[in-house]
Amino acid sequence: MEAMNDSLTIGSLLNFAVQNEPDQEVSYRGSETLTYKRFGKRATMLAKALVSEGLDPGDKVAVLDWDSLRYLECYYGIPMSGGVLHTVNIRYPPELILRTMLHAEDKFIMVRDEFLPMIEPAKDMVKGVKLWIVFSETGSFKTSLSPVIWYEDLLKRGDAELPAIKENMTATTFYTSGTTGNPKGVWFTHKQIVLHTMAELSSVNAPPLKITSSDVVMPLVPMFHVHSWGLPYMSLVKGMKYILPGKYDYGLILDTIRKEHVTISAMVPPILFMLLNHEKAKDVLPSSGLRTIVGGGAMSSGLFAMSRKMGVEALGGYGMSETCPLLTISVYNNSVLGLPEEERLKFNSAAGIPVTFVELKVMAENGKEVPHDARSIGEIVVRSPWLTEGYVKDPEASRELWRGGWLHTGDMAMIDSLGYVRIVDRAKDAVKSGGEFIPTILLEDYISSCPGVLEVAVVGRKDEKWGERPVAFVRVSPGLNEGKIRDHLSMLVGQGKISKFWIPDSFEFVPEFAKTSTGKIDKKPLKARVTS
Amino acid sequence: MEAMNDSLTIGSLLNFAVQNEPDQEVSYRGSETLTYKRFGKRATMLAKALVSEGLDPGDKVAVLDWDSLRYLECYYGIPMSGGVLHTVNIRYPPELILRTMLHAEDKFIMVRDEFLPMIEPAKDMVKGVKLWIVFSETGSFKTSLSPVIWYEDLLKRGDAELPAIKENMTATTFYTSGTTGNPKGVWFTHKQIVLHTMAELSSVNAPPLKITSSDVVMPLVPMFHVHSWGLPYMSLVKGMKYILPGKYDYGLILDTIRKEHVTISAMVPPILFMLLNHEKAKDVLPSSGLRTIVGGGAMSSGLFAMSRKMGVEALGGYGMSETCPLLTISVYNNSVLGLPEEERLKFNSAAGIPVTFVELKVMAENGKEVPHDARSIGEIVVRSPWLTEGYVKDPEASRELWRGGWLHTGDMAMIDSLGYVRIVDRAKDAVKSGGEFIPTILLEDYISSCPGVLEVAVVGRKDEKWGERPVAFVRVSPGLNEGKIRDHLSMLVGQGKISKFWIPDSFEFVPEFAKTSTGKIDKKPLKARVTS
Repeated sequence: MEAMNDSLTIGSLLNFAVQNEPDQEVSYRGSETLTYKRFGKRATMLAKALVSEGLDPGDKVAVLDWDSLRYLECYYGIPMSGGVLHTVNIRYPPELILRTMLHAEDKFIMVRDEFLPMIEPAKDMVKGVKLWIVFSETGSFKTSLSPVIWYEDLLKRGDAELPAIKENMTATTFYTSGTTGNPKGVWFTHKQIVLHTMAELSSVNAPPLKITSSDVVMPLVPMFHVHSWGLPYMSLVKGMKYILPGKYDYGLILDTIRKEHVTISAMVPPILFMLLNHEKAKDVLPSSGLRTIVGGGAMSSGLFAMSRKMGVEALGGYGMSETCPLLTISVYNNSVLGLPEEERLKFNSAAGIPVTFVELKVMAENGKEVPHDARSIGEIVVRSPWLTEGYVKDPEASRELWRGGWLHTGDMAMIDSLGYVRIVDRAKDAVKSGGEFIPTILLEDYISSCPGVLEVAVVGRKDEKWGERPVAFVRVSPGLNEGKIRDHLSMLVGQGKISKFWIPDSFEFVPEFAKTSTGKIDKKPLKARVTS
Repeated sequence: MEAMNDSLTIGSLLNFAVQNEPDQEVSYRGSETLTYKRFGKRATMLAKALVSEGLDPGDKVAVLDWDSLRYLECYYGIPMSGGVLHTVNIRYPPELILRTMLHAEDKFIMVRDEFLPMIEPAKDMVKGVKLWIVFSETGSFKTSLSPVIWYEDLLKRGDAELPAIKENMTATTFYTSGTTGNPKGVWFTHKQIVLHTMAELSSVNAPPLKITSSDVVMPLVPMFHVHSWGLPYMSLVKGMKYILPGKYDYGLILDTIRKEHVTISAMVPPILFMLLNHEKAKDVLPSSGLRTIVGGGAMSSGLFAMSRKMGVEALGGYGMSETCPLLTISVYNNSVLGLPEEERLKFNSAAGIPVTFVELKVMAENGKEVPHDARSIGEIVVRSPWLTEGYVKDPEASRELWRGGWLHTGDMAMIDSLGYVRIVDRAKDAVKSGGEFIPTILLEDYISSCPGVLEVAVVGRKDEKWGERPVAFVRVSPGLNEGKIRDHLSMLVGQGKISKFWIPDSFEFVPEFAKTSTGKIDKKPLKARVTS
């Protein structure tokens, strides 16, 4: 009987999905398809195999892959083994990838063969790895990693008994660069993932999203991004057909939407922009019935109008790495359902209303809640059972995150009289380009490492295609020009220190910076300059 | 940070409801109405007042009332105080009411003034009561109880600080008679109630129930019955207008459905029957858009057809006191959604598919799962995070309930290839003839499909040759005789619907049936009659 108090586990989500829809399918671009039953068997084999290979409860298991069926197996199988799924952001520059893996102390590392050349040079730095596991279609890969095993061979070793999973055991971890320099690790327990899943289930059926089990879902949020917003768990519990897009290729994605009759997706605004503007869009989207959650950045009214014109129902949502992620979604509450259809539409592009079990306040600088007047601006603070308890090995940042018993999002917002939240300013310093944070403090650090750069500040400029692009303001010694700085940054790209898309679009040379009272560069006037 | 691991409390459900829909309403028959905000304030005042008056965590607080706003305040306020809400079944005979209160060791007793004459004679038997609290519209009541206070006066004493509630603390308790001897007590924790609420939320939005926050709900399951099936919690979290019907009066109920535009209800089959056959039904129901969950007994095909004719969408559900109660509901899963509309309807009257987080098996006598063939019969056994851990002060019955790690429902069922469960019998009502089960509920359903049969109950009579043989008790319209019923059943045998040996040995015509407190036909006196 006691056992039933530890039933909020990822294994129980899988059991429920398989029990209820054994013949439903998960599919990779339509080219490889598994029934839930078969999928469940493979995820369980993975869990058992990891235990056979020496996994101890709490061991971190890193995964470096595009959105694949193997990745989906890891989403379930790794936590079921007692291990912790570490979803590595493969869009980070190699040095940062390595740094997060060292910080997490990964004991198993699962890597797609195409990433082997990136990971091999660092293999001696990663200590204490019990086993390297390679995803490969054919099993014929060459590597100097050791000990190493092909994923399919690993699965055959699954004869161990699974440990009893306690619901407060850690299930997942990953790193978020957020607004500041070094990526910070967050973590989530089995119980948190399950509660997050149930909260999603209780929200996504509401109008106008109206998800039912006959919908077909293909998230376009990478699986290394905050649990792909929870869809790998929620969709299977709901019993939906689940499509994995692999590495994003918009032509192929549109083909898959048509072929698999995809009706539900989730993505950041720049991905929606690229999808809508692809040459195949007109042939696919208007007849698809596609509804998509748009999060990870506010949806502009232009983008919203563009999607409606293309027959795509886009609906705002909001959350962050620290929050699992879902906090709000712009489904219709009772008040909005009472409005005429045309009026309702105005709410679709908001961040939305809190999902079940999210307590949310928009807090002014004086610590008081701002009035719900759609004008007053404050910081979003939240409480909910599924927020990360803190940052890995960083008690100070954890305390700062949770000061006063509320998780501080760092996002500025307004709230209207019907309860709908609108984000007005992403976390104050971050630049988000193509759905990816460019951590400005880190980037500034690298720019300043160029000889002759005296001071630097990076801010974001709105960009129709990418959402935002970085602009660098620099104060330099005589003789230094833009070309030399670009050469320096290109060299850092070559060294794997920064990603190519981090390089600012433009450089503005200034004689001096305005400073805040604490002596830091004041970014507000710079932001004003790039928006004017 | 630690605090967030104890957030699955009834207080947090209330917080969420008030935060999200402060101006939504709860209403007593339309004659007294409170906004969620005001309701939340009163429930909190109640919690604080109980603590002020000496309530210690874990103290049982009995409530004896019809479905009232005060009762709804108790549903939240009592658990929020650290006390345990004891919902007393006021349909029990007075002696049994007293016995359950003694067994529970209630420390506070809240009672509507009209029940005072029933409770006062027993007051000296109930020891250790800290305070009697009287619900009264006016506050002018006479009683010999002591110490005693009017509910409204109690609320004014609410200045204590609330204790920290741990999610594994007991929140509710009540007694279930089943159809056997002494009532047994079950109990549920805050966490269990919250998970049950979330599971309901994730199921009720599915077609064809499609509950949204703009629906208006009025449950017709008494609040002393298994949490009124969870609706007092689920509806407020969903943000729905909630109507309390008071003591059931079908004319008034139909008036209220019209006046308040009630669109969602829940009830046992006999209540649905009475509602459909009320003289006002035709004027109210066809235009109401009413959908209702029907549980607490299988819905006959006759009753289902009758409700469709009246424009009421009736949908089967299944659960029991021990299970909080919801286990299954007949919303459409992916397979059924793929069927043509006419085919789908056949699933509406089933018990349904497991709600999120219910593991369910139909188990044959050999302990193995029966095939999903809609023919094989076995007992329903379940696991889920919100099932009672056992029976109060009855370790033996608790072990029996949970033998083998599964809760044994004692209900016999079949399951079809799409996963839908149909209850065919209570295990203890089952008739076993020649080694074969005769599912009485199914047989009753077929007998009731004979024109002129109004009510029917089948019980087993000991038989030397066959072990047991079925006897049917029937209430019929004038003109129907045994011969016609036998012809009808022979026709069904010819159609392969029933086996020939299912046809009862004898038919007993009765003018009316004794009913249980839940309105079901009481089979105990019938069984007594056939054994004498």
